[in-house]
Amino acid sequence: METVSENRSFGGTQGVYRHRSKATNCDMTFGLFLPQEAAEGPVPVLWYLSGLTCTHENAMVKAGAQQWAAEQGIALVFPDTSPRGEGVADDPAYDLGQGAGFYVNATEAPWAAHFRMWDYIADELPALLAKEFPLDMERQSITGHSMGGHGALTLAMGLKGRFRSVSAFSPICHPTTTDWGRKQLAAYLGPDETAWLRHDATLMMRAEGLDIPLLVDTGSKDQFMSHLKPEALAMAAMERRIPCTLRLQDGYDHSYFFVSTFIEEHIGFHAEALYA
Amino acid sequence: METVSENRSFGGTQGVYRHRSKATNCDMTFGLFLPQEAAEGPVPVLWYLSGLTCTHENAMVKAGAQQWAAEQGIALVFPDTSPRGEGVADDPAYDLGQGAGFYVNATEAPWAAHFRMWDYIADELPALLAKEFPLDMERQSITGHSMGGHGALTLAMGLKGRFRSVSAFSPICHPTTTDWGRKQLAAYLGPDETAWLRHDATLMMRAEGLDIPLLVDTGSKDQFMSHLKPEALAMAAMERRIPCTLRLQDGYDHSYFFVSTFIEEHIGFHAEALYA
Repeated sequence: METVSENRSFGGTQGVYRHRSKATNCDMTFGLFLPQEAAEGPVPVLWYLSGLTCTHENAMVKAGAQQWAAEQGIALVFPDTSPRGEGVADDPAYDLGQGAGFYVNATEAPWAAHFRMWDYIADELPALLAKEFPLDMERQSITGHSMGGHGALTLAMGLKGRFRSVSAFSPICHPTTTDWGRKQLAAYLGPDETAWLRHDATLMMRAEGLDIPLLVDTGSKDQFMSHLKPEALAMAAMERRIPCTLRLQDGYDHSYFFVSTFIEEHIGFHAEALYA
Repeated sequence: METVSENRSFGGTQGVYRHRSKATNCDMTFGLFLPQEAAEGPVPVLWYLSGLTCTHENAMVKAGAQQWAAEQGIALVFPDTSPRGEGVADDPAYDLGQGAGFYVNATEAPWAAHFRMWDYIADELPALLAKEFPLDMERQSITGHSMGGHGALTLAMGLKGRFRSVSAFSPICHPTTTDWGRKQLAAYLGPDETAWLRHDATLMMRAEGLDIPLLVDTGSKDQFMSHLKPEALAMAAMERRIPCTLRLQDGYDHSYFFVSTFIEEHIGFHAEALYA
């Protein structure tokens, strides 16, 4: 693992690191914010999964999350959204290929060789973080934005016992029924839709439910609302009597101006679970 | 109008008053909390509509609302849930007749003679309050519990421009499809279901939407959940992109222990709209 940069931030350190990944068979870059408290011992971890077109950098520089993570003594991990590099398959569309890993393990050509983001986020990166940094991996929570909200929700439901709480900003909630979903799931996982089930938060909620606190915010003026379907997740969660806070925030859109407005509340929500 | 009682409460006054109602053609009793600020001039008003079996008294003594209304300088109105008295029709069931007015104007025998709770809450009682008390009727909001949550939601959607915000605890959200609803709507309004539409919050939401802030809390262990259907209202509100906060609160049931836990937040939510 190589240190790309480290900057002092809110009394802690915002680092960027690069490492060779077995899961994605290429170099991967991630951001990690360590609060001041990490100097004294392991701190809890909040994962932030980013959306389409993002790298490890977007949320790190635009979400304004470090201030609140510092206040709560929580580390933040900002993984990249896909494998990258010259030897890695890509597509001219912004919503497929590099920058659009959708947090799945691809099984179809040409994606299967590198696009194993589920394994990367679920197994490889946590193991690396545990080894290299003062993180308390018994206390993890997860959030994300858009495609990353989809990732946060499906990982939280798919990895029972891993996370203490899950939240999402403008998540893709029901991709098996929408434009941001059917195309990519078919490309990565093939035409057999049974393989898609574990990558649709609404279907997962119906099938598995959730046993950790859930918070979802979406802007009422989100320009991509028809791709997101927060109403489908709301219906599924409430039908299963899952404790939840589900909100449409008046007038907000899909941008980081939305995320940065509510990130304080999300980090506070996770802190409550991480320090319970 | 006759004063039944007045007690000092949190620096203000909790009163109970009785008056002859034209709408319901019988004597009606209501509670009114006036905060200290009412001595100096008109204060904003929050309506609290109660649930099945309740009188004006239940929320007044069990919701713990006065503390927070006093802090915000807001008056609270606690109407009764139905007409009452010897000459008023009743039913042996707890969910029909006296204590179960459902906030409709009954058109069917034997109910039509007295059960005109919509008119009472929408027209007659506000006019009386405006005449008798220092209330700023330009600043009204509404909340309620269970059948009263149903009333709050349907009145807020039915009386456009009247209220600045609406919230509900464990509301009956879709009565045209459930046990707490079909029986009563048929009894009060007759078999023509087109007359029921304006008394179903989910159908109103689909048809009319809502242009004021909306907050709904339901306990995840509510023993009457199958009568409430918060998931149907959630789906309808989010499908219409209505700004909203919809929550299932972990482990809470249908009781006033639930209401009193979250009434502070609801009153704070309304205060934000009333003082905007």
